[in-house]
Amino acid sequence: MIAQTTTALENARVKLLFSRPIAALAALLMAVPAQADALIDNVNGITLDEDGDVIHFTGLLMTTDGRITKLLGRKDKRPEKLDWRTDMHGKVMLPGFVDAHGHIMDLGFRSMELDLSDTHSLAEAQAKIAAYAEANPERTWILGGGWDQEKWGLGRFPTAAELDAVAGDRPVALTRIDSHAVWVNSAALKAAGITPATKAPPGGRIENGILTDAARLMIMQAVPQPLARERDLAFIQAQQMLLSKGITATADMRTTLDDWLVYRRVADKNLLRIRILSYADSIQTANRAAGGSPSPWLYDDKLKMGGVKLFADGALGSRGACLKAPYADAPKQSGQCLLTDAQLKNLMSRAAMDGFQVAVHAIGDKANAEALDAIEAVSDTYKGDRRWRIEHAQIVDPADLPRFGKGSIIASMQPIHALSDRTMAEARLGPGRLAGAYAWHSMLENKVPLAFGSDYPNDDFNPFHGWVAGFTRADGAGQPFGGWQPQERITREEAWRAYTMGGAYAAFAEDRIGRLAPGLWADFIIVDADPLLATASDLWNMQVEQTWVGGKMMWKRQ
Amino acid sequence: MIAQTTTALENARVKLLFSRPIAALAALLMAVPAQADALIDNVNGITLDEDGDVIHFTGLLMTTDGRITKLLGRKDKRPEKLDWRTDMHGKVMLPGFVDAHGHIMDLGFRSMELDLSDTHSLAEAQAKIAAYAEANPERTWILGGGWDQEKWGLGRFPTAAELDAVAGDRPVALTRIDSHAVWVNSAALKAAGITPATKAPPGGRIENGILTDAARLMIMQAVPQPLARERDLAFIQAQQMLLSKGITATADMRTTLDDWLVYRRVADKNLLRIRILSYADSIQTANRAAGGSPSPWLYDDKLKMGGVKLFADGALGSRGACLKAPYADAPKQSGQCLLTDAQLKNLMSRAAMDGFQVAVHAIGDKANAEALDAIEAVSDTYKGDRRWRIEHAQIVDPADLPRFGKGSIIASMQPIHALSDRTMAEARLGPGRLAGAYAWHSMLENKVPLAFGSDYPNDDFNPFHGWVAGFTRADGAGQPFGGWQPQERITREEAWRAYTMGGAYAAFAEDRIGRLAPGLWADFIIVDADPLLATASDLWNMQVEQTWVGGKMMWKRQ
Repeated sequence: MIAQTTTALENARVKLLFSRPIAALAALLMAVPAQADALIDNVNGITLDEDGDVIHFTGLLMTTDGRITKLLGRKDKRPEKLDWRTDMHGKVMLPGFVDAHGHIMDLGFRSMELDLSDTHSLAEAQAKIAAYAEANPERTWILGGGWDQEKWGLGRFPTAAELDAVAGDRPVALTRIDSHAVWVNSAALKAAGITPATKAPPGGRIENGILTDAARLMIMQAVPQPLARERDLAFIQAQQMLLSKGITATADMRTTLDDWLVYRRVADKNLLRIRILSYADSIQTANRAAGGSPSPWLYDDKLKMGGVKLFADGALGSRGACLKAPYADAPKQSGQCLLTDAQLKNLMSRAAMDGFQVAVHAIGDKANAEALDAIEAVSDTYKGDRRWRIEHAQIVDPADLPRFGKGSIIASMQPIHALSDRTMAEARLGPGRLAGAYAWHSMLENKVPLAFGSDYPNDDFNPFHGWVAGFTRADGAGQPFGGWQPQERITREEAWRAYTMGGAYAAFAEDRIGRLAPGLWADFIIVDADPLLATASDLWNMQVEQTWVGGKMMWKRQ
Repeated sequence: MIAQTTTALENARVKLLFSRPIAALAALLMAVPAQADALIDNVNGITLDEDGDVIHFTGLLMTTDGRITKLLGRKDKRPEKLDWRTDMHGKVMLPGFVDAHGHIMDLGFRSMELDLSDTHSLAEAQAKIAAYAEANPERTWILGGGWDQEKWGLGRFPTAAELDAVAGDRPVALTRIDSHAVWVNSAALKAAGITPATKAPPGGRIENGILTDAARLMIMQAVPQPLARERDLAFIQAQQMLLSKGITATADMRTTLDDWLVYRRVADKNLLRIRILSYADSIQTANRAAGGSPSPWLYDDKLKMGGVKLFADGALGSRGACLKAPYADAPKQSGQCLLTDAQLKNLMSRAAMDGFQVAVHAIGDKANAEALDAIEAVSDTYKGDRRWRIEHAQIVDPADLPRFGKGSIIASMQPIHALSDRTMAEARLGPGRLAGAYAWHSMLENKVPLAFGSDYPNDDFNPFHGWVAGFTRADGAGQPFGGWQPQERITREEAWRAYTMGGAYAAFAEDRIGRLAPGLWADFIIVDADPLLATASDLWNMQVEQTWVGGKMMWKRQ
């Protein structure tokens, strides 16, 4: 029935009428570019070309709707006919960063919650809680986390009564730094229907306002779902935080239907300012959001539901990562692979059948091997440019590394994790199993397409930090000295490439974003120094002054 | 934080550069209309003006993106500078119809199901079921309805075995014409977990493949939810059906979140061809779809979530309509008002607080009175142009009629119902209570804003049928002779107005659609005769040749 319909221009009855005066005008108009131009001039422009090599330019010419038409060198003549121009006074212009793995809504919600990670005593925490409660009278629950009674020197857990003293009748639920316990007040216990007679579920404990492990859920289920407007606000907050660090596009690695609805609502109201490469939390969500195939690029390429996220295992810190051999620090445990081989292949097939890209979370070496097995198995059926992704690819058996390259499987890695995890990873794995851990140099050696991200809000999303971690395996202060497992360093340019072009390629977006070149969107940042000449320490501390997406300034340092 | 961001054009550093050659060109361009024009010429154009008076024209000038710029009379000079023109060879052009009350997805799904309403024997029905099963091998369940064992002359209900004989192992569920019973086969019983030992719930009966009333749900819950692509297909089907009858915009009067997702998916893929004025099935859905306020007009004004639908009572036929006095044909029943006064006011307040329009389903005179009570009560708080709607306003106590006018409350009525319901309505109400029944003339007398629709798929959505019913109170064959309750006839023009401008106004869309005038969208139909000169019978049978939405031909008779 679609064939029955037609646009007016296709209508066979339509006659094109070019009267003479129109033809004359048309000829004149031909001399003008079809799309008006804008120039951002006098920049110290640095980008990568399509081969990943560094190139320099001094002016960026774009259409007024934000697509790059030309990069200009110092000697290139500037067009006279311009709709507008901006002089950047010699500042450094770089392509915006693409974070290949993040959780937008989690970042937004966490940023709106109470953060106790910087408190050094119970009294200090209590004061902060009281202040937060007063400053946020509209919140029906006070949520937050980051507390650590060890750091407080308390020698015991805090109590419900100590929360009641400062938070009154409003329910409060504050997660411990390690996420394994939640500290609540009497109002929260009441809201959750927990009385002194309530028994904790197996694997959990309820004790004087502290609920551990399996018992935590009893509280979390009682927390009201956020309202649509609260979700929208959390998103706006996260978007602002990401833009302020120079991230112009981000994968969203477990988009729920409610998350998707937020992105739609915000974009419908013309408030979407960052590009979201969305990977659904399930095939059901992908289908509901996008239908029987990935969504088109929506809102001038600012939103696309392109794939599905699957989980092969858990995390290393909590010993949920699925390992081939037992944990060095828990010889009876090897973690747990969450899906059988058949389940993984079935889920992959269902996604791939509808043309959705598949991104598999795999931390442990066994989980990575199983993800590789499954990808290899289904690749026979689902051919073509599928760009199977493994998220984290954190601990890989060196014997499995070539399999990434052979299958052109994208390794979506988080360089900053190497710094946050290194002590823990050494404890969990022992010295003998670090050869394939956080091994981005080995990935490149094996010709693996590499994409960098941060896994925010679980780690620091400042891409300059990740960039430095990528080529130094150390932080901005040079710690650890010489870099952790320094054989896995890559070059500064390679790390930059993974954090820009790599993320774009990983989301089928390399023809739109990831570098500055004609035909791509003018997504760029203005920074205070040349990142290729800066010391690692200066690069770590680099400040973003402006962030532009699609030729529009979306954030500016005040 | 939004204040921190800015578009490039707003950027303080931007300098507008108007060099001399550009200025000269700009001056030249000023002489040309900013937006190129298209002409649909040589039409017998008839529309209503903003006062609802009939006007004629012979050419429609519009921008190439589909907005009307001018209606041209016979003597008006045609512009020479045109992007394209079409000659309609004198055919009649009318504004597209706006159906003020329909259910798009129900129409689509019903159209894809098996319809047994035209079968005259069990054997004929069995043959039709077998043919449908064979023609639709991909359907995991065979769903449909419309059967009537009385019409078949069967003298008993059909049985599961009689279905098994023709439908094999695939579950089948076929609803009786009155919706009070479902006929299933053994596979459906098995899928629903119903065995001979299963007891029917109170108010229901299970007997040899027939499940009545409350027992029906046991089957319906076992029917798998449609896949996203099945929903999309159902939508495309419904859209096509509506366009083919000249409906260019329709209210969707109980949009679920899944329905909303369909409209988004279809529109994202550029396949939305009709305008949808969406009223959510709940405040929750409204918030999830649109946020804390109505959505903007999306996709060139083709979709908007603007309101919420509430239910004050049920339907007259099943004696669910809430009456002030008992049913004439069931003296112990008065129907049931579904919400208390407090509930109705609370729901209205919640919707109105977020700026959503409220549309209350009210059939019986008591339900209408309660809806009016609630609207009058909340109007004190939620002032301004709220356009409270009562859907159906079917049986209204004549004493309550002036209250519609006083509150400028929209009566959203379905003229075709008067024809389908008249015998049943006389039985339910008796002769003494028809004064305020289907009383659109009285509504206009009381200066009530009137919007016409069809309540499809529960009734015939052909707007020409509704139009004729509106001014004749009879069908195309003139039955009943002289019209039913003819004192409630309105003029041909008034009925037309209610089916076009009335529906637009009822959805806050009168500045976009509902008639043909500069600034509004070019939503029009081409028909085979002048509807103002045609006999009622010819108007009833009028054929739509083309349907255009936003200046594009979206449907054409083959």
